[in-house]
Amino acid sequence: MTTRNACLERDAQDPLAPLRAQFDLPEGVIYLDGNSLGARPRAALPRAQQVIAREWGHDLIRSWNTAGWFDLPKRLGNRLAPLIGARDGEVVVTDTTSVNLFKALAAAVQMQAGQPQRRVIITERSNFPTDIYMAEGLSRWLERGYRLHLIDDVAELAGAINQETAVVMLTHVNYRTGYQHDMRATSALAHAAGALIIWDLAHSAGAVPVDLHADGADLAVGCTYKYLNGGPGAPAFIWVPERHQAQFQQPLSGWWGHAAPFAMAPAFAPAEGIARALCGTQPIVSLALVECGLDIYDQTSMAALRAKSLALTDLFIALVEQRCAAHPLGLVTPREHARRGSQVSFTHPHGYAVMAALIARGVIGDYREPAIMRFGFTPLYTSFTDVWDAVDILCDILDKQAYDIHARRDAVT
Amino acid sequence: MTTRNACLERDAQDPLAPLRAQFDLPEGVIYLDGNSLGARPRAALPRAQQVIAREWGHDLIRSWNTAGWFDLPKRLGNRLAPLIGARDGEVVVTDTTSVNLFKALAAAVQMQAGQPQRRVIITERSNFPTDIYMAEGLSRWLERGYRLHLIDDVAELAGAINQETAVVMLTHVNYRTGYQHDMRATSALAHAAGALIIWDLAHSAGAVPVDLHADGADLAVGCTYKYLNGGPGAPAFIWVPERHQAQFQQPLSGWWGHAAPFAMAPAFAPAEGIARALCGTQPIVSLALVECGLDIYDQTSMAALRAKSLALTDLFIALVEQRCAAHPLGLVTPREHARRGSQVSFTHPHGYAVMAALIARGVIGDYREPAIMRFGFTPLYTSFTDVWDAVDILCDILDKQAYDIHARRDAVT
Repeated sequence: MTTRNACLERDAQDPLAPLRAQFDLPEGVIYLDGNSLGARPRAALPRAQQVIAREWGHDLIRSWNTAGWFDLPKRLGNRLAPLIGARDGEVVVTDTTSVNLFKALAAAVQMQAGQPQRRVIITERSNFPTDIYMAEGLSRWLERGYRLHLIDDVAELAGAINQETAVVMLTHVNYRTGYQHDMRATSALAHAAGALIIWDLAHSAGAVPVDLHADGADLAVGCTYKYLNGGPGAPAFIWVPERHQAQFQQPLSGWWGHAAPFAMAPAFAPAEGIARALCGTQPIVSLALVECGLDIYDQTSMAALRAKSLALTDLFIALVEQRCAAHPLGLVTPREHARRGSQVSFTHPHGYAVMAALIARGVIGDYREPAIMRFGFTPLYTSFTDVWDAVDILCDILDKQAYDIHARRDAVT
Repeated sequence: MTTRNACLERDAQDPLAPLRAQFDLPEGVIYLDGNSLGARPRAALPRAQQVIAREWGHDLIRSWNTAGWFDLPKRLGNRLAPLIGARDGEVVVTDTTSVNLFKALAAAVQMQAGQPQRRVIITERSNFPTDIYMAEGLSRWLERGYRLHLIDDVAELAGAINQETAVVMLTHVNYRTGYQHDMRATSALAHAAGALIIWDLAHSAGAVPVDLHADGADLAVGCTYKYLNGGPGAPAFIWVPERHQAQFQQPLSGWWGHAAPFAMAPAFAPAEGIARALCGTQPIVSLALVECGLDIYDQTSMAALRAKSLALTDLFIALVEQRCAAHPLGLVTPREHARRGSQVSFTHPHGYAVMAALIARGVIGDYREPAIMRFGFTPLYTSFTDVWDAVDILCDILDKQAYDIHARRDAVT
């Protein structure tokens, strides 16, 4: 059994430990919610100052050219690409994950339009709800009648995907359980039946190694404000591999997706390449801050981050199971490394109250219905000692029943 | 004929003149491009610092509740509402103008679905291109077959709107010419034929008085980064009047538009009220800065701003026509006050080169094909002396032919 001193020793040996200094984290907080909102890179404040005072305030309209604002979605996309196994010119950072998913779904359905028997979109009932809602929204508006098939268990996938399947749409790492799909095997399953597959990387980009090309993905979307530390609600991304770009058509055909946006022509002609996934003018201040998060990734590798992430989550699981064995905690996240994201979820009958007590003691995770306490582990700024201390506080709260089972539930946690 | 001293005198008497101090404008610049990117409110920098350092960096995930991030689209919408004749709970600040127009168009088409003969969307060929592109995008995806009818002249509207018209979609003030539609008369024309009318207020909100309810609009969208000074690419807005909210259905049905977003239910149920126009998580830093622009509007009235705007544009037209009479300049913007926005456009055979020379001398307007020089007048920070000096420099450039007709054209100006 490990000790706090052993954790301190591991931190001292950890080559990633110095990266924590690049984040601004408040004193007395153990932040295990980077899977919901990433911590703030220190560079974000001076970068915002540059964009607001210099680029906006001083250079004004010229900054669309001189500060490269117009090219920012593509430039940031190229910087993000290596983290997910994408290539130059295949990713743009733009809009929200929901809107990008709509584009991807609409384009995928259109690519399958030549096979009119393919009218089913498959996803999981446990998927992040907005993904399901967007698929519902699209299906309702396509008059030829698409049907959403929600599966309840991963084991159903193989049986569900068939000649009627147009698109399989999955979130690679589940937001609630931390379960990680086998992207390669599942993509192959979809392709064997002639279906296309879209991956939502909201809980994967910057969290686990992703290799979209090697693993046979068709389209992907994701988020920059979780593990990538882009800032609250920072613009999302969409990936369209070069092999699909010529066929990629989406209904949100705004001027940023036009072949010649400044010709002001009255008819739409899609841009060549990834720019056709763009739509309207982007929120530049929020967009620019995404780069501060990506800069930090340049200083390490996804392999190193993954090794530490697994070490942190292994340690957390082991310590909770050893030290809180007397309490009704249920591990939801897979023990198998290949199936685990960068979070650990435990159920507890009073999960909401226990999480509220943890937060009050400075251990910030979050709660998701039903009864699930989520703990996100970001190897860029989480230490082994943080894990020890978090479990220590959790045990103390459970041992003393120091939580209020009538705690008021906030709208958002 | 007026003089520079007379302009100085007008500025000294101008009750709006002190508002200029609330903007950060570079020395030596006369900024006549606030119709493209509004100037920076001084308050934007400290507000960004608060959001980034305090709300994001220190309070982290809790800020969704404690800093009111989740309610920001509605709260800012309520603050913007009085500027456009909207009511509380009818406006949200969110997404881009293009995306909001897609929602509005889709919802309007859906409201007309009971009348299957209505399959035409009418707009102007001279509309801002993205509006046309979004209508094209939607029409292409609606399989029952909608047709876009582009009119070439306002006079055609009355003849074009008929029993086949589902929706009339117009930009209230034209981005290129500064022509302002008669919202009341045109809305009445649409309604008389049973059509719905959507107004794009990109060049109206904060620029001219707008009274959506009194003038019979059905739906509206608009922009916060032009006259409203919200920051580069700041989120746009959408207005759904209470009378249409129950029928307002749109396909971008993301989790922020759900009746209970945190219940994480696997089926979509639209929120009551304006929240159903929301979709995904918003870029909070850019969104928060919108408030700094709105704060300044609280210190004056649209009536006072309109009076000064007309005085500025009248003065600019008169001075250009008097002092540059020898040059081939053509006024594009209506002389009639009721038909004029808050900009003045002149054609010149070498419009691009002349504008480049103006910009090099610190007079920042912009250029739009074909041959149009645009000058935007923002009464919050533009003085009568600015107008005098801008015309003085324009005359000097034209008199000396001090412009390079081979000037390289930037992608964006």
